[in-house]
Amino acid sequence: MDARVREHAEVLVDWSARVEAGDDVVVDVAEGAHDLAVAVAEVLGERGATLTVLYGSDEVGRAYLKGHEAVAGEDGDEDDDLTGRFGEPSVDLALMESVDVYLRLGGGRNTTAAADVDRDIRQAYASARTEVREARMDTDWVSTVHPTRSLAQQAGMAYEEYREFVYNAVLRDWESLAEEMAEMKAVLDAGEEVRIVTEREDAPDTDVMMSIAGRTAVNSAASVAYDSHNLPSGEVFTAPYATEGEVFFDVPMTIEATRVRNVHLVFEDGEVVEFTAESGEDALASILDTDPGARRLGELGIGMNRGIDRFTDSILFDEKMGDTVHLAVGRAYDACLPDGESGNQSAVHVDLISDMSENSFISVDGEVVQRNGTFRWEDGFEG
Amino acid sequence: MDARVREHAEVLVDWSARVEAGDDVVVDVAEGAHDLAVAVAEVLGERGATLTVLYGSDEVGRAYLKGHEAVAGEDGDEDDDLTGRFGEPSVDLALMESVDVYLRLGGGRNTTAAADVDRDIRQAYASARTEVREARMDTDWVSTVHPTRSLAQQAGMAYEEYREFVYNAVLRDWESLAEEMAEMKAVLDAGEEVRIVTEREDAPDTDVMMSIAGRTAVNSAASVAYDSHNLPSGEVFTAPYATEGEVFFDVPMTIEATRVRNVHLVFEDGEVVEFTAESGEDALASILDTDPGARRLGELGIGMNRGIDRFTDSILFDEKMGDTVHLAVGRAYDACLPDGESGNQSAVHVDLISDMSENSFISVDGEVVQRNGTFRWEDGFEG
Repeated sequence: MDARVREHAEVLVDWSARVEAGDDVVVDVAEGAHDLAVAVAEVLGERGATLTVLYGSDEVGRAYLKGHEAVAGEDGDEDDDLTGRFGEPSVDLALMESVDVYLRLGGGRNTTAAADVDRDIRQAYASARTEVREARMDTDWVSTVHPTRSLAQQAGMAYEEYREFVYNAVLRDWESLAEEMAEMKAVLDAGEEVRIVTEREDAPDTDVMMSIAGRTAVNSAASVAYDSHNLPSGEVFTAPYATEGEVFFDVPMTIEATRVRNVHLVFEDGEVVEFTAESGEDALASILDTDPGARRLGELGIGMNRGIDRFTDSILFDEKMGDTVHLAVGRAYDACLPDGESGNQSAVHVDLISDMSENSFISVDGEVVQRNGTFRWEDGFEG
Repeated sequence: MDARVREHAEVLVDWSARVEAGDDVVVDVAEGAHDLAVAVAEVLGERGATLTVLYGSDEVGRAYLKGHEAVAGEDGDEDDDLTGRFGEPSVDLALMESVDVYLRLGGGRNTTAAADVDRDIRQAYASARTEVREARMDTDWVSTVHPTRSLAQQAGMAYEEYREFVYNAVLRDWESLAEEMAEMKAVLDAGEEVRIVTEREDAPDTDVMMSIAGRTAVNSAASVAYDSHNLPSGEVFTAPYATEGEVFFDVPMTIEATRVRNVHLVFEDGEVVEFTAESGEDALASILDTDPGARRLGELGIGMNRGIDRFTDSILFDEKMGDTVHLAVGRAYDACLPDGESGNQSAVHVDLISDMSENSFISVDGEVVQRNGTFRWEDGFEG
């Protein structure tokens, strides 16, 4: 086995999930993540954790939903309460409620394996499982991916090339990155107003202001110890409000299976009042129309993982890339709000990304903290 | 997908496990059983059951135990209570206690995947999981296998040939076989003494008598409705006692990874008093020395599945084959005893098989019920 698979498992178990002897751990393995599961199981054995292994197969999940779909169609009860069809997920709930740590090892064999499942069925299934999802979020959960051919294909890369890419992103010196991100967090925590500007010849300008007064930034250092649940991670994010101005997002995204490119949003009084997209504008419109909160920002994130050197059409990696910022319309994370308060509410949370490597800056309360992709504390920074 | 995979799933879900709408079902998928898992998930969706999928990977299991083994070695605590290392399996217990139906889909990629795990570690892990195993036995559990290349190899067959073999055994007219087996059960339930005889030129004779008075036979028709938990099945078994005589078992078996051939046992007063084996005699000795119950019979089984036409070194199939009988030393099944009573007690239950297709008969209270592999109620029976 590639030694990096074992290193990945160690980072996941020790740095990210902070597993200790006696912890009850569930590992949820995608179809293509077998090798990583083997390495993770070995590390968990060494640490003295208990182990339960779930098979998180997209194809098995699709088949189950297609089975429901076939019968829901026959019954002619398509207008009925589809959610009721799925019953109480009492086994999964009992399982998730007794777990300390939940590790999701993504990496399937086909990223569109469930593409033909009826949307209503999918949503009804998700609704029926709200409590399971909530119980899972209450664990020390971490999500990562094993590099598979299918993910390489989605990234437009050769398999070996993609493996290099993933391990560059995952096998960082996390302790040192966490320290650097702490500086960014300190700036945002102390700040009241963020301005993001890019000026390019071939694209609309970005010039947007947002308030962050009273909000707390999260140092997303790929560890539950930092309230950060993705490996890789490497971003600092907060929950902005009162957004004014316009933003151009030049990084393509796949949102609900639709390719969305070159989104342009105009904000007034914290709300999106105009939007265009070069492609996928209907998908964008449908998201913004979900509920009132879907037109307000839920997140400002600043990518700081220099191990990620290109966009791969995967939010897990793209939004963490150094030299990028992302704004999410929709739901804010409670971690960014004062205790007991909630931020923007919405059923959606959709990230959009801008490349900040050229002709751009981020300033906080008028002081530039990043210019052309270089942070204030890095060599080559031009204030 | 091969239509037989879907048929296998239907037999498993409907005939074997009797799944109904609202049942909570766990499916435990071996590494090579993905296709069967997809088909089973689809059928479970159609029936309106809930679904939780476990990944029952031998390689992941081995890695976890090797992890424990490495640390147990380092600690120098090899003499300590290894079972304690594994902690309480509270997640698996919570899961298994909330399940109605447990379906094991066997079929790995290497039947010897865990061959290098220390025996003490394996036993300690098994001990730590006693309650989980008991909770699983309290569900409507069914175990089956998906034909994989690894199982084909163990059977000494080509892959396509093995698939034919498995589907011939699994896709029976179970209702009609259950009726035929009911006749055999009636004979055994009414009978007091069974005699088994084979006479062959090239092998020791078998001539053994055993009492079955007061015992109840189980019609093992591959369905929880018949207290039968393997698919395929197709045997009628009971719990004999007071065995006298000698038996030659000409079907090779793999017992605890040792190939055991041509076992000869001599019984007096219900106990094995002499034994030989052409190969694997040490493994046999170790089993018979486990405890006092290991020298007494726990089971007499009569194979009645005519879809199984050859031995494949898999007890799931071999002992069900028409034209065979098997005797197990060790533990008896409570189902064969009057309510509240227990039969022979032992930590082991090891089946040994004799081919009955030639120069042989089984009689009950002096009346021949099978001669040369043909039952009394079949064409060509020669009383």
